[in-house]
Amino acid sequence: MEGDVIKSILEAYRTGDIDLESAMAKLRHWPFEELGFAKVDHHRSLRQGFPEVVYCEGKTPEQVASIMLHIKAHSGQAMGTRASAEKFEAVKKAIPSANYHKMARMILLQPPVINEKLAEIVVLSAGTSDMPVAEEAALTAEAMGNPVRRIYDVGVAGLHRLLAQLPILEKAGVLIVVAGMEGALASVVGGLVAKPVIAVPTSVGYGTSFQGITALLSMLNSCAAGVAVVNIDNGFGAGRLASLINQKGVVD
Amino acid sequence: MEGDVIKSILEAYRTGDIDLESAMAKLRHWPFEELGFAKVDHHRSLRQGFPEVVYCEGKTPEQVASIMLHIKAHSGQAMGTRASAEKFEAVKKAIPSANYHKMARMILLQPPVINEKLAEIVVLSAGTSDMPVAEEAALTAEAMGNPVRRIYDVGVAGLHRLLAQLPILEKAGVLIVVAGMEGALASVVGGLVAKPVIAVPTSVGYGTSFQGITALLSMLNSCAAGVAVVNIDNGFGAGRLASLINQKGVVD
Amino acid sequence: MEGDVIKSILEAYRTGDIDLESAMAKLRHWPFEELGFAKVDHHRSLRQGFPEVVYCEGKTPEQVASIMLHIKAHSGQAMGTRASAEKFEAVKKAIPSANYHKMARMILLQPPVINEKLAEIVVLSAGTSDMPVAEEAALTAEAMGNPVRRIYDVGVAGLHRLLAQLPILEKAGVLIVVAGMEGALASVVGGLVAKPVIAVPTSVGYGTSFQGITALLSMLNSCAAGVAVVNIDNGFGAGRLASLINQKGVVD
Amino acid sequence: MEGDVIKSILEAYRTGDIDLESAMAKLRHWPFEELGFAKVDHHRSLRQGFPEVVYCEGKTPEQVASIMLHIKAHSGQAMGTRASAEKFEAVKKAIPSANYHKMARMILLQPPVINEKLAEIVVLSAGTSDMPVAEEAALTAEAMGNPVRRIYDVGVAGLHRLLAQLPILEKAGVLIVVAGMEGALASVVGGLVAKPVIAVPTSVGYGTSFQGITALLSMLNSCAAGVAVVNIDNGFGAGRLASLINQKGVVD
Amino acid sequence: MEGDVIKSILEAYRTGDIDLESAMAKLRHWPFEELGFAKVDHHRSLRQGFPEVVYCEGKTPEQVASIMLHIKAHSGQAMGTRASAEKFEAVKKAIPSANYHKMARMILLQPPVINEKLAEIVVLSAGTSDMPVAEEAALTAEAMGNPVRRIYDVGVAGLHRLLAQLPILEKAGVLIVVAGMEGALASVVGGLVAKPVIAVPTSVGYGTSFQGITALLSMLNSCAAGVAVVNIDNGFGAGRLASLINQKGVVD
Amino acid sequence: MEGDVIKSILEAYRTGDIDLESAMAKLRHWPFEELGFAKVDHHRSLRQGFPEVVYCEGKTPEQVASIMLHIKAHSGQAMGTRASAEKFEAVKKAIPSANYHKMARMILLQPPVINEKLAEIVVLSAGTSDMPVAEEAALTAEAMGNPVRRIYDVGVAGLHRLLAQLPILEKAGVLIVVAGMEGALASVVGGLVAKPVIAVPTSVGYGTSFQGITALLSMLNSCAAGVAVVNIDNGFGAGRLASLINQKGVVD
Amino acid sequence: MEGDVIKSILEAYRTGDIDLESAMAKLRHWPFEELGFAKVDHHRSLRQGFPEVVYCEGKTPEQVASIMLHIKAHSGQAMGTRASAEKFEAVKKAIPSANYHKMARMILLQPPVINEKLAEIVVLSAGTSDMPVAEEAALTAEAMGNPVRRIYDVGVAGLHRLLAQLPILEKAGVLIVVAGMEGALASVVGGLVAKPVIAVPTSVGYGTSFQGITALLSMLNSCAAGVAVVNIDNGFGAGRLASLINQKGVVD
Amino acid sequence: MEGDVIKSILEAYRTGDIDLESAMAKLRHWPFEELGFAKVDHHRSLRQGFPEVVYCEGKTPEQVASIMLHIKAHSGQAMGTRASAEKFEAVKKAIPSANYHKMARMILLQPPVINEKLAEIVVLSAGTSDMPVAEEAALTAEAMGNPVRRIYDVGVAGLHRLLAQLPILEKAGVLIVVAGMEGALASVVGGLVAKPVIAVPTSVGYGTSFQGITALLSMLNSCAAGVAVVNIDNGFGAGRLASLINQKGVVD
Repeated sequence: MEGDVIKSILEAYRTGDIDLESAMAKLRHWPFEELGFAKVDHHRSLRQGFPEVVYCEGKTPEQVASIMLHIKAHSGQAMGTRASAEKFEAVKKAIPSANYHKMARMILLQPPVINEKLAEIVVLSAGTSDMPVAEEAALTAEAMGNPVRRIYDVGVAGLHRLLAQLPILEKAGVLIVVAGMEGALASVVGGLVAKPVIAVPTSVGYGTSFQGITALLSMLNSCAAGVAVVNIDNGFGAGRLASLINQKGVVD
Repeated sequence: MEGDVIKSILEAYRTGDIDLESAMAKLRHWPFEELGFAKVDHHRSLRQGFPEVVYCEGKTPEQVASIMLHIKAHSGQAMGTRASAEKFEAVKKAIPSANYHKMARMILLQPPVINEKLAEIVVLSAGTSDMPVAEEAALTAEAMGNPVRRIYDVGVAGLHRLLAQLPILEKAGVLIVVAGMEGALASVVGGLVAKPVIAVPTSVGYGTSFQGITALLSMLNSCAAGVAVVNIDNGFGAGRLASLINQKGVVD
Repeated sequence: MEGDVIKSILEAYRTGDIDLESAMAKLRHWPFEELGFAKVDHHRSLRQGFPEVVYCEGKTPEQVASIMLHIKAHSGQAMGTRASAEKFEAVKKAIPSANYHKMARMILLQPPVINEKLAEIVVLSAGTSDMPVAEEAALTAEAMGNPVRRIYDVGVAGLHRLLAQLPILEKAGVLIVVAGMEGALASVVGGLVAKPVIAVPTSVGYGTSFQGITALLSMLNSCAAGVAVVNIDNGFGAGRLASLINQKGVVD
Repeated sequence: MEGDVIKSILEAYRTGDIDLESAMAKLRHWPFEELGFAKVDHHRSLRQGFPEVVYCEGKTPEQVASIMLHIKAHSGQAMGTRASAEKFEAVKKAIPSANYHKMARMILLQPPVINEKLAEIVVLSAGTSDMPVAEEAALTAEAMGNPVRRIYDVGVAGLHRLLAQLPILEKAGVLIVVAGMEGALASVVGGLVAKPVIAVPTSVGYGTSFQGITALLSMLNSCAAGVAVVNIDNGFGAGRLASLINQKGVVD
Repeated sequence: MEGDVIKSILEAYRTGDIDLESAMAKLRHWPFEELGFAKVDHHRSLRQGFPEVVYCEGKTPEQVASIMLHIKAHSGQAMGTRASAEKFEAVKKAIPSANYHKMARMILLQPPVINEKLAEIVVLSAGTSDMPVAEEAALTAEAMGNPVRRIYDVGVAGLHRLLAQLPILEKAGVLIVVAGMEGALASVVGGLVAKPVIAVPTSVGYGTSFQGITALLSMLNSCAAGVAVVNIDNGFGAGRLASLINQKGVVD
Repeated sequence: MEGDVIKSILEAYRTGDIDLESAMAKLRHWPFEELGFAKVDHHRSLRQGFPEVVYCEGKTPEQVASIMLHIKAHSGQAMGTRASAEKFEAVKKAIPSANYHKMARMILLQPPVINEKLAEIVVLSAGTSDMPVAEEAALTAEAMGNPVRRIYDVGVAGLHRLLAQLPILEKAGVLIVVAGMEGALASVVGGLVAKPVIAVPTSVGYGTSFQGITALLSMLNSCAAGVAVVNIDNGFGAGRLASLINQKGVVD
Repeated sequence: MEGDVIKSILEAYRTGDIDLESAMAKLRHWPFEELGFAKVDHHRSLRQGFPEVVYCEGKTPEQVASIMLHIKAHSGQAMGTRASAEKFEAVKKAIPSANYHKMARMILLQPPVINEKLAEIVVLSAGTSDMPVAEEAALTAEAMGNPVRRIYDVGVAGLHRLLAQLPILEKAGVLIVVAGMEGALASVVGGLVAKPVIAVPTSVGYGTSFQGITALLSMLNSCAAGVAVVNIDNGFGAGRLASLINQKGVVD
Repeated sequence: MEGDVIKSILEAYRTGDIDLESAMAKLRHWPFEELGFAKVDHHRSLRQGFPEVVYCEGKTPEQVASIMLHIKAHSGQAMGTRASAEKFEAVKKAIPSANYHKMARMILLQPPVINEKLAEIVVLSAGTSDMPVAEEAALTAEAMGNPVRRIYDVGVAGLHRLLAQLPILEKAGVLIVVAGMEGALASVVGGLVAKPVIAVPTSVGYGTSFQGITALLSMLNSCAAGVAVVNIDNGFGAGRLASLINQKGVVD
C-alpha cells in the first residue's frame, strides 16, 4: 500500500502536477502533523493498523487533550495510556465521548468493538496487585478488537488454581502472563500449553524484587520455549503484540 | 508408574468411558522416560507440537547422544542446540543420519521439511558477528516447518541497507531481529512494519555492551509497540516462538 | 593572597619583565573570590570563554543569589542551571534584569546574543517528554552565542519524521541528540550525517529504562562512529561542548 | 596459651570446682591447632556436630592434605569440598582410605554412616546440568548421617514430571531444591508441600541468567512461604543446614 | 466446579472407594473461593498447616477486609502482613475481634496460642532500627504456636552483648537473625552455635547498604555453615520457615 | 548479670587477686545497660576512647532522648548523628544543655574541647553541596578534641583553588576529602601530599552519579596510594577514624 | 550532495531513462555491495568522509580480507580495528601494501597523509597500560589526516607531569583523554583548558575498576563542562569524533 | 624543561633568593624522567616518603625492568607489585640484587630495614586463601620500615581463634583486616579495639561473593566506627596507608 503512495508521487512529478522540490519533500515518506511540541503521525493507522497511542506520562493535561483531538479528527478512535484522572478530565472537556478506565489508567475515545471470530486472548495474573498492568493489557487488546478472557490471582504458590484453568488456556489464541515477585507463572504456563506466551513482569514485590527486575530476569530465563518478554509494567505493549499475533491470518 | 497412567487412559478410551478428546487431553500431560540423569519427555511433541529439544551445554557427549537416541525412538525428529563439534561426533556415532550445522551450533536428526503454504519468517541481523545467533533462530524455525528469509548486516548505521528490504518485511509473517551493541535495529524495524517482532539481543560488542545487556535493555524499551524480547543469544527461543506465531490459523 | 598574584603579574607586564602573552597565560590560572561557602572563579570567563555557571541544586536560594551577584559584578552575564522558580525569585530580587526559562529550568542575567556567522547547532529530541533537557541544551548553546535549531519529537518509531529533516541536519555545525527509553535516535542520526553528535540520555521512560541508564548504554554502544555521550539529563554539558566545537576556527 | 585454657578447665572439673556441664560448655569455645597457614578447629565437631570441612579452592594440594591429616588425627571423619582430582591425589597419598566423589567434587575420609531412623532429605534438581551442585548437597547430607532421596530433572517446563513425585515430597523431612535459569522450581515445590525448603541457585544458564543471580533472585522472591536460600552453587551449605534441621528432635 | 471436586472426593470416601489417606491427599490440592479480584485458598490450612496469609500491600482496605472475612469463615484464624493502620481499620469494622500489632505491621484475628512443649525460636536483631522486621518474624512464629524469645540490639560492634546471651542461643530450636548494614551478625551467630539459622537482611542503613542488598549478600556468603537467607525485610517468611522447622517431629 | 561481672572484677582487684592492668582489661569488654529497645554500652568510652554515639535515623525522638540521657549519666559527653530538628527538640527537653548543629545534623551534649597540641585535621570539600557531610566529619573530629581546618569548594575543575592551599595541606595530621560527582579530588589530594587521606563520597550529583556510587568507585580506584574510603555520606565515620589516627602517639 | 543523487534519479525517471521500478529501487537510498555475510557500504566515504572501517572482532580472517579487498577496490584507503596479527596476515596476503600497527591493533592499507594546516589533536593517557587504546585513537585521527601529539603517563597522582604540558594543551584543536582506574584525568584536563575533550575510559585496573566502568562513570560525572565520553576502550570512536571536530571549518 | 626548573630552584637557593625550606617545597613538586612509555617520578621519594612503586600488570617485562633500573639509579630502593615470576626474571637480569616474594607477587630491590621503635602493624586474614593479599600488605609495610605481625585464618565462624589474639590487637599501631566472602572480620575487629582499621576486601569466594564486591560492601557498612576500606585485593594500598599512619609523630 505504501508503494502506491510512492508511485503516485512519482507519477505526479512525471506528469508535471508537482515540481521536483515537492516530489522530494513528499518522498521523505509519510504525512504527519506538526503541533509544535509533538508531531502527530496520522498515517500510523494506515501503516500500523491502529491509531496513534498517546503515552500520557510526562505530558501536560493540555498537551494530551490537544494531541488526542488532532488524532480523533483523522482516525475516530484514539487511546491514551498511563493517564491520570486529571489528564482524563482535560480530554473529557475537549472530547465529551471519551471514557476513562481507572484501574488500567487508560482513556478510550470510543468503546471497543470486538471481533467475535477471533480466538480469545487470555490474560493471567499471579496476584491481585498485578491487576492494573493486566487490565492495561486486556483493555488494549479489546480496543484493537480481540475477545479477552481475564484469569487473575493464579500464582504458582497455589498451583491448583492455575491447573483448574487448563482447558481455557488450551483454546486461547495468545496468552499474556502478568506477574511480579519471582515471575514463575510464565515458565509454568509456557510449559503447559503450546501457545505464544507474552510475559509482562510487574513492579509488584519488595526488597530483591527490585521493582520488577527479578520477575523480568526470571521470565527471560524461562525454561519453557515460546515465551517472550516486554518491559516491566508494559501492559500496553503486551496487548498490542498479542493483538498483532491474534489477528494473523484473519485481518492480515 | 507412568506406563500405568497411559495404559489406564487408553483403556478408558477403548471402553468408551472417555471420548477421544478427553483421552488426548489426558495424554498431553503425562508420560516421560527416566534415564537416571534425565527424564525424557516423549509426549512433548504431542503437547508442544515439536520433539524435545536437547540443550547440550552442561551435558557430556554421552548424555547428549543417549538422550537423542531415546527421543528418536519415539519421535523421529530431534534437535540439539548449543552443540559443540565434539558432542555432534558422539551423536553421529549413535545416529548416523544426524546433521551438524556449525554456525548455528545445532544438531538435527533429519533435514527440515518446509511447509511452503506458510508465510515467511524473516530473520534480520545487525552485523556479521550476530550470525551464529541468527542462524540458530533461522534453523530452528525451518526445522519446525517454516519458510525462512535471512537478511543480515543491516544495522541502523547504514539505514538505506535496511530500507531497501522494506517490501520483503511487509510480506513476512513474523520478524526476528538479532542485534548486539545498542540493539537499535529492533526499534527501527518495529516502527516500519505492523508485524510481530521478536527481538534477540546478542552478546556482540565490548565495554558497556556488557555481553548483551545493553542490547537487551534497549530492546525492552523500544519506542515501537509490537516488540517482545527473549534472552541474550537465545536464537532457539526466538525461532520456536516465531514458529508458534507463524503457524497460528494454519496448523493450530 | 590571590590579589597579590594578580598585582605582581600585571606589574611584571607593565615593566616589560613579561610580555602580553605571558601575562595572559599567568592570569588564566589564578584568581577566585572567597564567599565562605563557595569560591567564585572570576577568571573562568577568561580561561574557559564563558562566565561561571551556577548549578543551583543543593544550594539555598540565598546562596544562589549571592553567587550570581558576585559573578555579575565581574562578568556581566551569568547562568544558573537546575533552578527552581523559588531560587529564581531570590535571584530576581537581587538582580532585577534576570530572566527565568521555566522549561529549561535556567536563569540568565542577560538575553543571549547570537553570532549569526556561526553554523546552527541542531538539537533533536525523541519525544515530547525529553523537552526540558533539550531546552537546557539549546538555551545553553544560545547563551554562548550560537544559533540553535530545535527539532523535537522525531523518535525512530516514526522514522519518516526524522528523514524529513535530513537537509537541515546536513547543514548543521554540531548535532545534539536528546532521547530517553532506548535512545536509538543517536545511532540513526550518527549514521545519517558526518557531523559531531553529542548524545544526551534522558531519564524519560519506566521500568527497565532505569532513569536513563538504558538510553546511556545504548548511546555509548552506538554502531555509528562520531557519537559521544554526556551524563543523563545533562543538557547544559551538551550545550557547552557543542558551543566549544561550533566556535572552533571562528572564535578560537 | 590455648593448651593452658584447656588444662585449667579440665583441672577445675577434676577438682569439682566446675561440673561436667560447665566443663563441656567452656570446652566448646576454645581449642584449635596452629598450622602456620591455617588454624585447624579441632573442637568444631564438639561445637557444631561435625568435623571441620575443608573448602579446597584457593588452597594448594599440600595444604589440603596437611589440614585433612590433622583433622583426621582428632576426628576420624573429615570432608573436603570443591576438590579437584589433583587435590584428591595429594590427600590420597597422605590418607589411603580417602574417597573421591567426582561429580560432587568432594573428598570423604570414610564412607557415610546413615541413620535410618531419620526422615529422608529429598534433593530435587531442575535439570541435568544442576547435578554437580545437587550431588554436593546430597553427599554432604549423607556424610552427616541422613537418608537422602535424589529426584533430578524435574523442571517446571514439564510439570507432570514433578507432580508424579508428590507422595515422596510429602513424606520428606526437608527438601533441597537445586535449580539454575529462572529457578521457578523452588516456588512450585514450596507451594505444593508444607516442609522446610532450602533453595540452591546454580550458575547453570546463559545470558541474563547471570551465573545464577537470576535463580537466586527468583528464589528470594518466592511467593511460597517456607523457602530460604543459600549462596549460588552452595550445595554444601544446603546439605549442612538440611542435616541440622532433619536431626532436630532426634540427635539434638 | 471446585465444589464438585470436593463433593466427589468426599462421596468416594463415604462409599469406601478411597480410604481416608487418599481423601486427605486429594483434598490437599484443590479448593479455593473466587472473589473476582482474588482466589482465596481455603484449604491452605489443611495443606500448609496455617490459614492463608494476606499480604496487604497493593490491596485496598476493602479488598483486605473482604479477603480476611472469607478466610475467617473457613478457618477462624487469619493473618495480615504489611498492614497499615488504615487497612486495619477496615478489617476491624468487619471483624471486631481483630488485633493490630503496630510495630510488626500485622493484623491477627485471634491472639496466638503458644505450644509450650516446643523449643524456643530465638529472634536476634543487630540494632533498634531492625525491630519492625524482627517483630514481624517473632509474631508470625507466635501466631503459629511457637514460644519466641526476643534478643534485640546485639550487633557485632559490641560483641560482649551477644556473648552474654550464648546460653540462651544454645537451647534454642531455631535462630532468626535480623540485621541491616553489613549483616555480620548472621555469620557470628552461625559460628557460635550448631542450630539452623534463618538470616533476614533489613533495609536499615544508608549509602552502600543499598536498602538491604549489602546485608543480603553478606549473609549469603556467610563463612558459617547452617545459615540460609530470605528476602530483604521478609520477617514473615523467616517466622513461617522457623515454625516449620521448630515443629518438625512434634506436629509433623 | 553484667553488674555481677563488674563487681567480681573489682573485688578481685581489691583483694589483689588480679592487678590493675588485668582489671582494666577485663572491664574493657563487658558492661552495658538494657533499655528494652536498646542496649547502651556504657564502657565504650573506656574501650573506644569516646562515649557511645547515637545514630538517630530509625529511632523515635523518645528513644533518642532516653538513650542520650542514659549515656550522659555515665559519660558526660554524648553525640547524636543524623538527627532531625524534631529529635533534637526531644533531647533538648531531657537535657537542656544539649546543642544542635543544623548543617551537620548533629547533637552534642557539651561544646567540644580542643587539644591544641594535636596537628590539624583538614577537611576539604569539592563543592558547596558537600558541606553537610563535611561538617559532620569536622564536628565529629572536634568533639573528639582535634583542631580542624575546613577548606570547602575546591573541586578539581578549578585546580588553582586547591593548589593555593598546598602549604596548609602539607602541615596537616590527617586529610578528609569529601566529594560527590566524580570524586576526583581524593586522587589529586592523595597525589600532592604524603598524608593519610580519608575519602568520603557524597550523594551529591545526578544521573550516573548514582547517589554517590560513582564517587565511591572513583575513590576506591584512586591512582594515589594512601587513600582509604568510608561509606557514602559517612562524615561521622571519617571524623572518628581521622581522630584515631591524629591522636596516635599523643593520647594512645 | 545526497540531494543531487535523488534529483538525478527522478530526472532519469521523468526522461524515461529508467522505469518506475528502478527509480523506486534506487530511491531506497544509497548503494552498497552484497557479500553474503556482509553488505559493504561503498558510499560511506561520500556520506561520512572516510572509507568503511572494518571492526575485525567476531569476523574470520577470510571475511576480514574479503571485505577490505572490496572496500579497497572502491576507495583506496581502508581501516581495520581490533585486528589480531593472524587477521592481518590474511589481509596482507590479499593486499601486500597493508600495514599492521601492533599496539593499536589496527590495519591500514596506506600510510596516513597528514594535513599540516590542521590544529593538533592531543591524545593524553593516564598510564602506560592505557597505551593500546590511546594508540588506536591517535592512529585513527592520523589516518583521517590530522596531526596528532601523544602525551602519555600523566595521571593525576603526579600532577606536575600534566601541568608541565599545559602550553601544548592550550594550542590543541581537540583533546582526547584516555584513562582507566578512577579516570580523574578527564576532569582535571577539562578544568584546565577550554577545548572539546573526548574522554575514553579504559579497562585498565582491578577490583572495583570493573573493567572500565568506574572510569566511565567518573568521566560522565566530570565536574568540568566540555567533556563527552565514548564506550570503554573505544579509541577508534574517539579518534573519529576528534577528526570530525578538528576538521570543522576546514574540510567541512 | 624540567631540568631548567630544578636548576633555577637550586641557583635561587645558592644565591639566597629563597631559603632552604622554600627550595625543598619547590623541589617537591617537579622533576620526573621521560622514558617514552613512562614518566618516572624521581622525586616521589622526596614528596611521598618512599620510592616510586611499579604496578607491573599491563607492562611488559622489559618495561618493568627498565623503569626499576631508572628508579634504582636515583633512589636505591624500589618496589614492584603484581609481578609475575616472568617479570621478576627480567628485573633480576638487570638488577641482580632484586628479590622476589612469590606469595605477595612483589619485587624488592633491597631487603626491608625495620624501624623497631615503631608500633606493630598487625595484618589479620580471615582465611588461608586471603594470604596473597595479606602478604602484599605486610611486605609493603615492612619495606617502608614498619614491624609487622601476621595473624592469619581467624575468620568469625570460629570466633575464639580471634579472641585469643585480643592482647596483641590492643598493642598494635594500626590494624589491617584482609577478608573475602562476607568480610565480617572487619566489623568484629573494629568493635573490639579502638585502633585505626584498614579493611581490604579480597576476591576470595564464589557465587554472590562477586569477586570481592560483597566483602567490600560489608566493610563499607561496618557498624564499627574507625574502619576505612581500600580497593578489592589492594594489599599494597593498605600497607602504604598503614605505614603513613604508623609513622605519624615518629618520622613525620
